[in-house]
Amino acid sequence: MSSLEKLLSEINRFEQFLRVKPLYFDFNKMEFVWLDTRLLPFEEVYRRTRDYRRIAEAIKSLEIRGAPAIGVSAAFGLALAAFESRARDNTMLLDDLRVAKSILESTRPTAYNLFWALNRVMGRALVEAEKGDVDRVREATLEEALRIYVEDIKTNVEIGRIGSKLIDNGMTILTHCNTGALATAGFGTALGVVRYAWYEGKRIKVITTETRPVLQGARLNVWELRKERIPFKLIVDSAVALLLAKNMADIVLVGADRIILTGHTANKIGTLQVALAANHAKKPFYVVAPTSTIQPTWNPEEIIIEERSREEVTTIMGKIQITLQDIEVYNPSFDITPPELITGIITEKGIIEKPFDKNIPSILSREH
Amino acid sequence: MSSLEKLLSEINRFEQFLRVKPLYFDFNKMEFVWLDTRLLPFEEVYRRTRDYRRIAEAIKSLEIRGAPAIGVSAAFGLALAAFESRARDNTMLLDDLRVAKSILESTRPTAYNLFWALNRVMGRALVEAEKGDVDRVREATLEEALRIYVEDIKTNVEIGRIGSKLIDNGMTILTHCNTGALATAGFGTALGVVRYAWYEGKRIKVITTETRPVLQGARLNVWELRKERIPFKLIVDSAVALLLAKNMADIVLVGADRIILTGHTANKIGTLQVALAANHAKKPFYVVAPTSTIQPTWNPEEIIIEERSREEVTTIMGKIQITLQDIEVYNPSFDITPPELITGIITEKGIIEKPFDKNIPSILSREH
Repeated sequence: MSSLEKLLSEINRFEQFLRVKPLYFDFNKMEFVWLDTRLLPFEEVYRRTRDYRRIAEAIKSLEIRGAPAIGVSAAFGLALAAFESRARDNTMLLDDLRVAKSILESTRPTAYNLFWALNRVMGRALVEAEKGDVDRVREATLEEALRIYVEDIKTNVEIGRIGSKLIDNGMTILTHCNTGALATAGFGTALGVVRYAWYEGKRIKVITTETRPVLQGARLNVWELRKERIPFKLIVDSAVALLLAKNMADIVLVGADRIILTGHTANKIGTLQVALAANHAKKPFYVVAPTSTIQPTWNPEEIIIEERSREEVTTIMGKIQITLQDIEVYNPSFDITPPELITGIITEKGIIEKPFDKNIPSILSREH
Repeated sequence: MSSLEKLLSEINRFEQFLRVKPLYFDFNKMEFVWLDTRLLPFEEVYRRTRDYRRIAEAIKSLEIRGAPAIGVSAAFGLALAAFESRARDNTMLLDDLRVAKSILESTRPTAYNLFWALNRVMGRALVEAEKGDVDRVREATLEEALRIYVEDIKTNVEIGRIGSKLIDNGMTILTHCNTGALATAGFGTALGVVRYAWYEGKRIKVITTETRPVLQGARLNVWELRKERIPFKLIVDSAVALLLAKNMADIVLVGADRIILTGHTANKIGTLQVALAANHAKKPFYVVAPTSTIQPTWNPEEIIIEERSREEVTTIMGKIQITLQDIEVYNPSFDITPPELITGIITEKGIIEKPFDKNIPSILSREH
C-alpha cells in the first residue's frame, strides 16, 4: 500500500465523523473540491479546481474560511501548483512553488494555520528535492497536503473527545462564529466538541451568535446544527452578555485563528467581548484549536489583524444595503483575547491550563 | 397669550437645535406627525394621524422608537384619545382615557418614559376633571402633552450643554444605538451631547455600532451624523472591545430606557457588552438620559426586558432572510448594565456620580 493509499484508508476509518464533508481532494480528476460556504444555508454548492490561484481566490472571498480549513486548502493549492508547473528540474519547480506559496499566503493574514500548512508542504518539497526526482517532489507535496488533511480530521476528533469531558448532560454551550466541519477539513474544533458530546448521547443545547458581518453563526452554525439535529438558539452578537448574566449558558467554547505562547488568542471579531461577558458572569471560557494554530512567539504585536472591506459592513452578504454607501467603516475581522480571560485551551494534546506561558511551550514540545 | 401659545413660542426659541424634527403636533389639522424611522436612511417619510391606536401601532412597530420619543408620542396619543372621545361628562371621558392609556402602555414594556408621560397626562386630566368642564379636560391633556414635548427638547439641549463639558477638542466618542433627535422630541440625549459639542465648534469624531437587530446605528446614527456633517465611522457591534482596547475612542456615551435608584440601567441590547469593554479598556462610560427615565425603585427585578420577534433576527428589516426560517431565536431588546460599570449619568439636572444609590435619589428630589 502506498503512503497515499494508507492516508486515504485512514480517512475511511473516520467516515462516521464526517457527516459534513466541506473539503476533499478528487484523485481521479486531480482536482480540489470545496463546499462554497458563502451560499449556505440556502444552497449547497461544491466547487472544484486544478488551479491554485482559484483556491487563493476562494480563501480570500470566504468561499473557504476557518483557520484549519484555510490551512488544508492552501496546502492542496501548493500541491496543485507543483503539478501545474512545467518545471523539468527541482530548482525551477521550487521557484514555481515559491511564487504559488506567496500568492496563497497573501490571502488571509491572521490565520496561523495557513502559514504553518504552507511551510510544511514547502519544507517537504525542499527535502524531497535534495533526493533528486522532480516528479517525486510533485507527489510528495500532494502527499504532504493529504497528510495535513487527514491529520486535521483526526486532530479534530481527538479535540472533540478531550473537550467533551468538560460537557455534562443538560449543559447549554455558547459559541461565537463557525468552528464546525465548515471551518476545518471536517468535524470542527469548538463545534467539534459539541458534536462529540452529542454523538456520545449527551443532551445538550447550543446558543450561537449570528456573527456579523459575515454571519457565520446565522448561516453556517445553523446549517450544521440543524443537520446534526442538535437543539440550538440564535442570538445577535450583542445579546451574549445578558444571556450569560442570566445563566442561560453554562460554558463558552470558541475557536482560534492564532494563539501565541503567552496565550493571547486571535479569533473572530467579537470574541474579546464574549470573553469579557463570560468572565463577568463567572462562566468558563475555553479556546478550542489544534496546536497547529499556535505561533511560537511571545509578542502579541506580531499578530496581524486583518481588516476587510467596507461592503461587509454596509451590506448583508452583498445582497442588500443596510446604510448609506459612501460612509467610513472600520472592519477588523479579528480581535485578541488576553490570557487572563481564558479558562483553558482545548487541543489534541490535552487541555492547556494556566499559566499559559509555561504550559503552552511545554505542550508544544511534547510528542503526541 | 394662552398656555399653548406660550409653549409653542418656547419651541421657536429652540429652533436652532432642531435641524432634525422627528415628531410634532399639527394644531391646524389636530394631527400628530412623525418621521417613520424604519425607512431611514433611504427615505424620509412623515406619517400623520388623529387616531391614538395608530400611534400605539407606530410605537410597537418601531416607526417611533427611543424612550423619550415613545413617551412624548404616547402623551400626544392620550390627548388625541381625549378629543376622539364623545364623552359628555368627565366620568365617561376619564373611562375612555383609561382605555387609551392601557393600549398605549402595552406597546413597549421597558421604556420608562412611556409610563411616566402617560401618568403625567392622565394625572393632569384627573386634576382638571375635578374642576368640571369636560372640554377643558380635553384641552388640558393636549397642553400637558405639548408641555412634555417642549420640556423634552429643552431637557435634551440642557443635557447636551452639561455633557459637552466632558468632551474635549479632538475626542472620539463611541456610541451604541440611536439616542439622537430620532429617539426624542428633538436634539437627542447621548447623541445630543455629541451634537452640542459639535455646535460649540469642537472637532470631534464619532464611532457608532450598527446595533443589530434593528440597525439603529447603521440607519439612524449614520443619517443624523451625515446631516450634521460630524465625521464618523460605522462598526459591527462585535468590534467595540477591540476598538476600545486599541485606544481608538476616548469616551463612551449611551442612552437609557430605564434607570433605577441603584443606578442599574436598562438600555439597548449590547450596552452591557459595551460597558464591560469600556471598563476593560479603562475608558469612561456615561449613561445620558433625562430624569424622566428614572424609575423610583430599588429593585432591578422590576425592570421588564422586552423580547421581540424572531423575524428581527432571522431577517434584515424584514427584507432579506439571513438564515433558515423556522429556527429558535432569543431576541431580548434590552440588557441591564450594573452601576459598577457606569462612570456617571448625565441628566438635565447635572452629572450624577457614584454612589448612585445616594446621588440618584438626591437629584430626583432636587427642584430644577
